[in-house]
Amino acid sequence: MFVCEIICVGTELLLGEILNTDAQFLCRELAAMGIAVQRILTVGDNPARLREDFRLAWGRSDLVLLTGGLGPTKDDLTKETVCEALGIPLAVDARTMQKIEDYFARRGIPFVESNRKQALVPEGCAVLYNENGTAPGCFIQKDGKAAAFLPGPPRELQPMFTQSLAPLLAPWGGGVIVSHHLRTIGIGESRMAELAGEYLDMENPTVAPYAKDGEAYLRVSAFAPDIEAAEALCAPVIKNLQFILGKSVYAIDKALEQVLLDLLLARSKTIAFAESCTGGGVAARLTELPGASQVFRYGFVTYANEAKEKLLGVSRGTLETHGAVSGQCAFEMARGAREASGADIGVSITGIAGPGGATPDKPVGLIYLCATDGSQTKHLKMETGRTDRNYNRVAAAKQALNLARELLI
Amino acid sequence: MFVCEIICVGTELLLGEILNTDAQFLCRELAAMGIAVQRILTVGDNPARLREDFRLAWGRSDLVLLTGGLGPTKDDLTKETVCEALGIPLAVDARTMQKIEDYFARRGIPFVESNRKQALVPEGCAVLYNENGTAPGCFIQKDGKAAAFLPGPPRELQPMFTQSLAPLLAPWGGGVIVSHHLRTIGIGESRMAELAGEYLDMENPTVAPYAKDGEAYLRVSAFAPDIEAAEALCAPVIKNLQFILGKSVYAIDKALEQVLLDLLLARSKTIAFAESCTGGGVAARLTELPGASQVFRYGFVTYANEAKEKLLGVSRGTLETHGAVSGQCAFEMARGAREASGADIGVSITGIAGPGGATPDKPVGLIYLCATDGSQTKHLKMETGRTDRNYNRVAAAKQALNLARELLI
Repeated sequence: MFVCEIICVGTELLLGEILNTDAQFLCRELAAMGIAVQRILTVGDNPARLREDFRLAWGRSDLVLLTGGLGPTKDDLTKETVCEALGIPLAVDARTMQKIEDYFARRGIPFVESNRKQALVPEGCAVLYNENGTAPGCFIQKDGKAAAFLPGPPRELQPMFTQSLAPLLAPWGGGVIVSHHLRTIGIGESRMAELAGEYLDMENPTVAPYAKDGEAYLRVSAFAPDIEAAEALCAPVIKNLQFILGKSVYAIDKALEQVLLDLLLARSKTIAFAESCTGGGVAARLTELPGASQVFRYGFVTYANEAKEKLLGVSRGTLETHGAVSGQCAFEMARGAREASGADIGVSITGIAGPGGATPDKPVGLIYLCATDGSQTKHLKMETGRTDRNYNRVAAAKQALNLARELLI
Repeated sequence: MFVCEIICVGTELLLGEILNTDAQFLCRELAAMGIAVQRILTVGDNPARLREDFRLAWGRSDLVLLTGGLGPTKDDLTKETVCEALGIPLAVDARTMQKIEDYFARRGIPFVESNRKQALVPEGCAVLYNENGTAPGCFIQKDGKAAAFLPGPPRELQPMFTQSLAPLLAPWGGGVIVSHHLRTIGIGESRMAELAGEYLDMENPTVAPYAKDGEAYLRVSAFAPDIEAAEALCAPVIKNLQFILGKSVYAIDKALEQVLLDLLLARSKTIAFAESCTGGGVAARLTELPGASQVFRYGFVTYANEAKEKLLGVSRGTLETHGAVSGQCAFEMARGAREASGADIGVSITGIAGPGGATPDKPVGLIYLCATDGSQTKHLKMETGRTDRNYNRVAAAKQALNLARELLI
C-alpha cells in the first residue's frame, strides 16, 4: 500500500491558536482514495526543524504532503526548505506572477515586492493553481516518490486538493477504503468490544471500537480496488456483528435523532417531549434536522415542579410522595406531554444532572425516562455514576431518543 | 526554554474521523505556562511506529505528552509501548482498580476482565486520577526528563490536564501567558477588527480577533515572568478596547449564558422562553449551567402554530395576518410565556432556520425575537443571509440571551 505522511507547517498551530482542520480533511480524502496516512506532523515556521522532519518523512514514505508556509511573509519557508533538501531549484512561474500582478492592479494597491516569492515554484513540478488565493500549490516527483505543497487556509486548500491534486494522486491510490459504523446505545464500549471479540483482530476489514457521549460505535473499514469490492468485504462482518450485538445496534452509520425522525415520518406519528434535567436538549436535538416540524409540534421544558403540575398534569401527590425524580413522575410527565399536545407519543426525562442536587437516596446521575403512546409504555432508570452535568444531560437526551425509537419498533 | 513534544495516538485521527482538538487545547494551555511545543505528531494504534516516534521525541525534548490509547481494548497500547521503551514496568494502581470495580458494581453489570488493563500504571509515576472516565493518566520522570499520558476524550483530558498535570509542570514554565477575551455580540468580526485598528499590531500583549457562531472576540494575551506582571500588561489595553467597542462588549471572558444567569440571580428575577425555530436550544443553553433552576422554571417549545395559540395565547388573527414569523407573533409569544409561567421576563424566538421554509417575502435566516418584563419590551429582527440551519439556530439563541441581558441592564 502506498504510504503517505502529512507535515503541517505553522507556529499558530503549535500555539493552539487554530484548530488543524486541514489534517482531518486530507486524511479523510486520502483514505477514501485508498492512500494510508501513517503520520501527521505539525511543526512551526522553523526551517532547521522542518528540514530534519521532511528528510525523515521522505525517507520512509511514498508521498509527503505539506500544508502552510506558502505565503508572502518572511516566515513562510516551506517551499524553500523542502526544495533545498531535495536539491531542486526554484523558478518563477509566469502564470502565477501575472495573476499576482493583476490582483494588485485590480485592487489599485501598489505591488509589494515580497509577493514575488509566492510565484516561485520547484523546477519541473506540476503547478496547482489557486482559485481562492494567491499562493499556488505544487506537485513534485523524484526518485519514484512525490511531495506536494498546499496552502494553509482551508478554503484554498480544500478546492485545490479536490480539483488539482487528487487527480494526480489517483493512480497511486490502488483502491478505496470504505468505512461503516455500527452505532450502539445502552451497552458500553468495553462490553461491546468484548462481544466483538476476535473481530477486533481482523485485518481487512478492520474492526475498531470507540465511545462518545453515552454511545459506543464499532467502525468496520475495508480496503479494496473499488467501492463494490470494499463493500463486499464489509457486508458479512457487519451482518455478523449486528447479530452478535443484537438490539443494542440502533443503526449503521445514521445518527440516533435521524433514525427516530425517519421512523416517525415512516409511521406518520408525532412526538412531544416533557423535559426536566435535559432542559430542552432533546427537542433541540430533534429539531436540528430539517423536516422535524412534520413530527414535532410541542415541547415542554418543565424545570420547576409547578410547571410539571400546570403544563403536564403531574399530580401533587406524586411529587410529594415519590418526588420529581421518580419513575412515577416520569410516567405522568410523558402521559401529560402526549395529552396536552395531542401527539401520538409522549417522552419524558427527569433526573439529577449535577454537580449539585443529590439527596441521600438520590445520587447525581439518577435519571428516569418514560415513553408512552397511550397503550404501550416504556420506562428507563439510568444511574450514570457520574457528576459531570454535561455528560449526564447528553447521555439522558440520547436515551430519551432511543426509548422513543424502541417504542416505535 | 523547556521544550515539549506532543504525540497523539489513534487510528481514527489518521482516518480523519475526528478532529484533533486535544492538540489545540494542550498547545494553548502549555503556551500559557511558558512551555514551548515544538512538534505535534499523530500516529495510529501501531506499537512499532509509536515506539520509534516516542524514542525520537524523548531524545530531543524535555517533556513528551501522549494522548489517547489508554482505554480497555486491545488496540489501546500507549502505556505499554512507551513504558517498554523507557524500561519502566507497569503495576496495578489499587485506587483505580477499586474505582473501576465500583463503577461496574454500581451499574449492576458484570466486570469485564479487559478493564483491569486500565488500572496499570508505570511504577513510581504520579497517577492523574480521572474524574470523568475510568482510564487514569500518569506523569513519569526519568533522566531529568518527563513524559505524561492523558486520555483521548476531550472531556476527560481537559480537566485532568488543568487540575492534575498543569501544577506538576508549572515549575518548568519560563513564565506565564495570560489571555483575556473581550466578547462582543451584534457587531461582527470585521467591524470589530476595524475599530481595534492598530491594537492588532501590538506585540506584548498581542491582540487578535476571531469569530464564532454569531459572536466576535478579541483575545488580549501578554507574556511575563508572573501572572501579576502579565495582568498589568493586559489591563490598560483591555480598558481602551472596551472603551472603543462600547456596549457591544457584553463581557470579559464570561460566556453569554453565564452573564445572563448571573444578572438574573443578582436581581432575583425569573425567565421563561417561548421557542420556535431554536427548538429548545435557548433553554438548553441556560440550563447547561448549574444553578439555572433558581431563575428558570418553564420553557415552551412551540414549533406548531397550534402550540403557540394553546400554550402562549398567540391570537389566531396574528397568525393569519402576520404569520408565525413576524414581530407581532414574537411579541405575543414573549408575553404569553411570561404570563403562562408567572416568570418576570418572557423571551421569544420565531424564524426560518432553513434550509427550506422560505416564502417570497420571508427568506431563510429571517428571525424575530422579543423580550418583555411587562412594562419594558425589546424587539430584534435578524436577517442572517445564511441558509445554514445550525448557524441560524445558534446565532438566534445567542441573540435571545443577549436581548434578555439588555432588558435587565
